Amino acid sequence: MGFDRLIARIRALHNPTVAGLDPKLSYVPDYIRKEAFARCDDPFEAAASAILTYNKGLIDALCDIVPAVKPQCAYYEMYGWQGMRTLAQTIAYAKEKGMFVITDGKRNDIGATMQAYAAAHLGKTELDGCRCAAFDADALTVNGYLGTDGIAPLTEVCAQEDKGIFVLVKTSNPSSGELQDQLLGDAPVYRAMGNMCERWGEATIGEYGYSAVGAVVGATYPQQLSELRAALPHTFFLVPGYGAQGGGAKDVAPAFDANGDGAIINSSRGILCAYQKAGCDAHAYAEAARAEAIRMRDDIISAL
Amino acid sequence: MGFDRLIARIRALHNPTVAGLDPKLSYVPDYIRKEAFARCDDPFEAAASAILTYNKGLIDALCDIVPAVKPQCAYYEMYGWQGMRTLAQTIAYAKEKGMFVITDGKRNDIGATMQAYAAAHLGKTELDGCRCAAFDADALTVNGYLGTDGIAPLTEVCAQEDKGIFVLVKTSNPSSGELQDQLLGDAPVYRAMGNMCERWGEATIGEYGYSAVGAVVGATYPQQLSELRAALPHTFFLVPGYGAQGGGAKDVAPAFDANGDGAIINSSRGILCAYQKAGCDAHAYAEAARAEAIRMRDDIISAL
Repeated sequence: MGFDRLIARIRALHNPTVAGLDPKLSYVPDYIRKEAFARCDDPFEAAASAILTYNKGLIDALCDIVPAVKPQCAYYEMYGWQGMRTLAQTIAYAKEKGMFVITDGKRNDIGATMQAYAAAHLGKTELDGCRCAAFDADALTVNGYLGTDGIAPLTEVCAQEDKGIFVLVKTSNPSSGELQDQLLGDAPVYRAMGNMCERWGEATIGEYGYSAVGAVVGATYPQQLSELRAALPHTFFLVPGYGAQGGGAKDVAPAFDANGDGAIINSSRGILCAYQKAGCDAHAYAEAARAEAIRMRDDIISAL
Repeated sequence: MGFDRLIARIRALHNPTVAGLDPKLSYVPDYIRKEAFARCDDPFEAAASAILTYNKGLIDALCDIVPAVKPQCAYYEMYGWQGMRTLAQTIAYAKEKGMFVITDGKRNDIGATMQAYAAAHLGKTELDGCRCAAFDADALTVNGYLGTDGIAPLTEVCAQEDKGIFVLVKTSNPSSGELQDQLLGDAPVYRAMGNMCERWGEATIGEYGYSAVGAVVGATYPQQLSELRAALPHTFFLVPGYGAQGGGAKDVAPAFDANGDGAIINSSRGILCAYQKAGCDAHAYAEAARAEAIRMRDDIISAL
């Protein structure tokens, strides 16, 4: 219920972070890429295969210290349906290794269509009598611009399948304020969206006090993060923007509640490309990712 | 440039409508479904194959009278990566038959990630030296909640590849007003989003006066449709909500400009399920879809 499974895993590992799996082909070590392109004639097959190998290496290196991974759909879709197959295989592998999987798809649509997205990413699809899971993540990021009927089909599946969603509230990018900071009466748009998250989550509050409807709030806006933490006591936060986008440990500290719960901090490029940044041998990419994940964990824990 | 290719095709066929390809497996005629499930062991493979057959039949029946199709990503993702392969094959087939393809994905993210979505759906992906198109639609629906840096990577690809985007402005669903109708000062959120579309499109205005940045405005809100048509002279409208969602021909008339340009009206279930509604033999599903597409065209043209 709520994000209990995720929170329990964070507590067990003493690590409130998630590794973003945004595998641009240029991040994949040369030796993996070359092997795949030598083996496969179709360049999309080769890319998809190289990325799967890379992801599995990262998951193996991270699964006992990092509670969750967050594959970003865009970086799989750009490699075609073969890339989407790699997304499904990556999710299955990470779950097999005990990780909580957040698919970062920022999906949104009208109610009937959101039922289809809910089935695709969190639930099961009806297939002529059998019900099968297509992508089967533990949580999905979504956009709430369409209001309640775009969210209700997801909360239904979350309640049935013990899964969660993260609604975009205040995003980490420089132009997020163009709409999100505009005032609706006294309060900005992001606050209205945050209040909707509290309402949407009401029926799914778990044992740690958080509902199945979380929010995306960027590390690059620490003041809003602090304001929203106080205003949304039942909304668990997914916090992008640490590392490559400029957020530091003290920027993300306000995302947490008094118990040190309430948020998970994402790093994508920092972990994925740690071997490039460290200038170490590409064969050590997974060890470099693990070292960076440990550094990040200790950095964030020390700021709490 | 802009939506010139689409507008030229609409003018040539005297038909400002688009057929939504939202192929739930339950819409697919029994005889197609049974054949596919008898042939394929994997239920996702069977579903993907059945849907492709169904889509091709629809495209064959519509391509000389309807200018465009709009596959809805959710209904392909729910059938797994095999469903995404069917999406790619459907897009390729529709383009081969001369149709303009709008992928309805409502994608949105920060700038770096939107580059990946832009490559996936409209542009080309770098694959170790070669550049290949993954899904290759003519246009993509997107969500502008993240502001300019989530849109800029798309307008760049649109300019390079002569493609377009449709930004969600005022959606057709009942709860669209929860955020979209809230007032930012004097004007509602949807108006602010519409104004951003005009700004984002400035550099890509084509010969018919419309930019490559269109807007999604629902037929279920005719007053807002009329207001937005007047306020956004360079923004081409994609109008969902006709038919199954309740919009009629006189509701969509305000979407058009004085020349009868400026909008394309979508129908999904009305066309896809015409054979069920008409109670005719399932083998005649494509003819029934064609008859409904002609009825819809004439209905809308008569209201202009």
